Amino acid sequence: MAGGSGTRFWPLSRRARPKQFLAIGTPRTLIEETLGRLSPLIPAERALIVAGEGHVPAIRELLPDQWLVTEPCARNTAPCVGLAAVHLLKRDPDAVMAVLPADHHIADAPGFRRLIAAAEERARAGEIVTLGIRPDRPETGYGYIHYNREDTLATTRGVEVCAVRRFVEKPPRAVAERYLAEGGYLWNSGMFFFTARRLLADIRRFLPAMAAGLERIAAAIGTPDEAAVTAEEFNKMESVSIDYGVMEHADRVRVIPADIGWNDVGHWAALADFGTADTDGNVRSGGRPEDLVLIDAHDNIVQAGDARMIALLGVDNVVVVDTPDVLLVCGRDRVQDVRKVVSRLEELKRGELL
Amino acid sequence: MAGGSGTRFWPLSRRARPKQFLAIGTPRTLIEETLGRLSPLIPAERALIVAGEGHVPAIRELLPDQWLVTEPCARNTAPCVGLAAVHLLKRDPDAVMAVLPADHHIADAPGFRRLIAAAEERARAGEIVTLGIRPDRPETGYGYIHYNREDTLATTRGVEVCAVRRFVEKPPRAVAERYLAEGGYLWNSGMFFFTARRLLADIRRFLPAMAAGLERIAAAIGTPDEAAVTAEEFNKMESVSIDYGVMEHADRVRVIPADIGWNDVGHWAALADFGTADTDGNVRSGGRPEDLVLIDAHDNIVQAGDARMIALLGVDNVVVVDTPDVLLVCGRDRVQDVRKVVSRLEELKRGELL
Repeated sequence: MAGGSGTRFWPLSRRARPKQFLAIGTPRTLIEETLGRLSPLIPAERALIVAGEGHVPAIRELLPDQWLVTEPCARNTAPCVGLAAVHLLKRDPDAVMAVLPADHHIADAPGFRRLIAAAEERARAGEIVTLGIRPDRPETGYGYIHYNREDTLATTRGVEVCAVRRFVEKPPRAVAERYLAEGGYLWNSGMFFFTARRLLADIRRFLPAMAAGLERIAAAIGTPDEAAVTAEEFNKMESVSIDYGVMEHADRVRVIPADIGWNDVGHWAALADFGTADTDGNVRSGGRPEDLVLIDAHDNIVQAGDARMIALLGVDNVVVVDTPDVLLVCGRDRVQDVRKVVSRLEELKRGELL
Repeated sequence: MAGGSGTRFWPLSRRARPKQFLAIGTPRTLIEETLGRLSPLIPAERALIVAGEGHVPAIRELLPDQWLVTEPCARNTAPCVGLAAVHLLKRDPDAVMAVLPADHHIADAPGFRRLIAAAEERARAGEIVTLGIRPDRPETGYGYIHYNREDTLATTRGVEVCAVRRFVEKPPRAVAERYLAEGGYLWNSGMFFFTARRLLADIRRFLPAMAAGLERIAAAIGTPDEAAVTAEEFNKMESVSIDYGVMEHADRVRVIPADIGWNDVGHWAALADFGTADTDGNVRSGGRPEDLVLIDAHDNIVQAGDARMIALLGVDNVVVVDTPDVLLVCGRDRVQDVRKVVSRLEELKRGELL
């Protein structure tokens, strides 16, 4: 899933190039990292990218030959995953899907592939499997998965697979703190595993109108009407997440607790979580090491451009993002509010910078 | 005097373009502002610029027809003023000199001209006159002039002219606080008034070797040997300030207490002293107003470039200087240390940025 259009990495991310198409604290772009860490378990020729029309140029620049299906409009994740499922079914009636966001960071790729291999086995057996990240802080920005280790159903390839009790929405702070203390909760990573057949059966059960649309699209794939039918049906679909529309109601939903160095790269401060800091806590992404001079500077995050010296003198906890047409200087504790700058520029009709 | 090569406005100022050739919180460059505020009292055709060879291109770009004498090398202010004096004497044996740094800011130009007119009268009568700025803080970065209002010698054109008791070097903090409390001290502004003849007589008295060199230069002016003789003699001269070499020893030295909104534009934080702040205390210089977006940002100083949006979000007391090849982000209380960045870049052999 490469459809995200987040503004939280503005000004490096723009409408036509959201963060999955950027290298943020990584050598390659996040979408290339996502594909790369699946290899050799899932070869690139079996990876299907689903993205919006507006992102096709960015994808084609990076991955000219990648299998790609475009969403005619943004309709949240349930229609996106359903569209992928009908395309996969055409190729392989027994297809097992790994649904993965294109813009996350995972430090332990071998560990991640071990979990995927276990999840694939369970999915092939008809279950829905999700990866649940063990929380290390009372994060209020994620949904949680309530599970019980005593419910562990099986250990597949040395990996625990547990029953899900329920999915819970983003909690208030006090609730998140209780979740962390109690220990029976995992972060919902948005990564799911199931057969395409099982997913479409559940969409038929819980979202019947959407299922009808997907069936019309399935029938049109490979015909001259494919684009027109996809556009017509996709437009009519309910905008709903796969979590809310399917997972919360489905049977036999499992969770694999995961300790894989996962980071959803949610905002500029996330660079400090997986980037390499100097001894003063400063993290650089982009640019050349020799083009950053730091004097009495601590715990700063710098997204450098390609062709400028950046000097920080006597500043702490600041985020600096240097792009050719915009410079952002932001308090590290205010990175969640970068969208406020984007909103201000929209009001000021400065769309060329968004 | 346009010979300054200060690094404190780096990265806007560079070796070939120190701050007198920049617009820093001003519509025109500081040297143009300096010449402009003398008009109509001193017309531009009677203004002589003394600067280093390296600054000639910057001066000719701004002021193609201005009377200009170049210093073959940097030798502090006494040789500089002496060189100007011998050139002025050639034009007018009764020349009265106003010695003015090219890179200061003076908010009250009419008030300044009133003081100059009074100083000129006293200088023509054979006195040495300096402007002393009434201090409003215990500044340790300036020399002071000890005077006594009871010594007021005359009121010329409504302006008080006082006897100087002594010049004092940059004081430690406790001493500066005492000066401020006692009230008998003024900041030495580096602005002096005297006849060229009187100045050269005092150089003969206190710096006889320098006087001999200046006499050789005077004899060569207008001859084919002028440049060679100037270079040879200037090189041999002692590097000494006019304050230390002449003023502290001279007779009949006067000071005019000045309240003219003077600022020596000594570092980036000075912009806040004479720039126009928004209601949150932010000051912008350079760039276009519409290319600066401030959200929850207070007491920042921004030197903007010509062609980029700058957005500040949730940051206070930061100085941002945006130039095409260098970006500086500096704590407002650390502007005195900008030279440390310059030194670091020298060590790193990044002379192209200096």
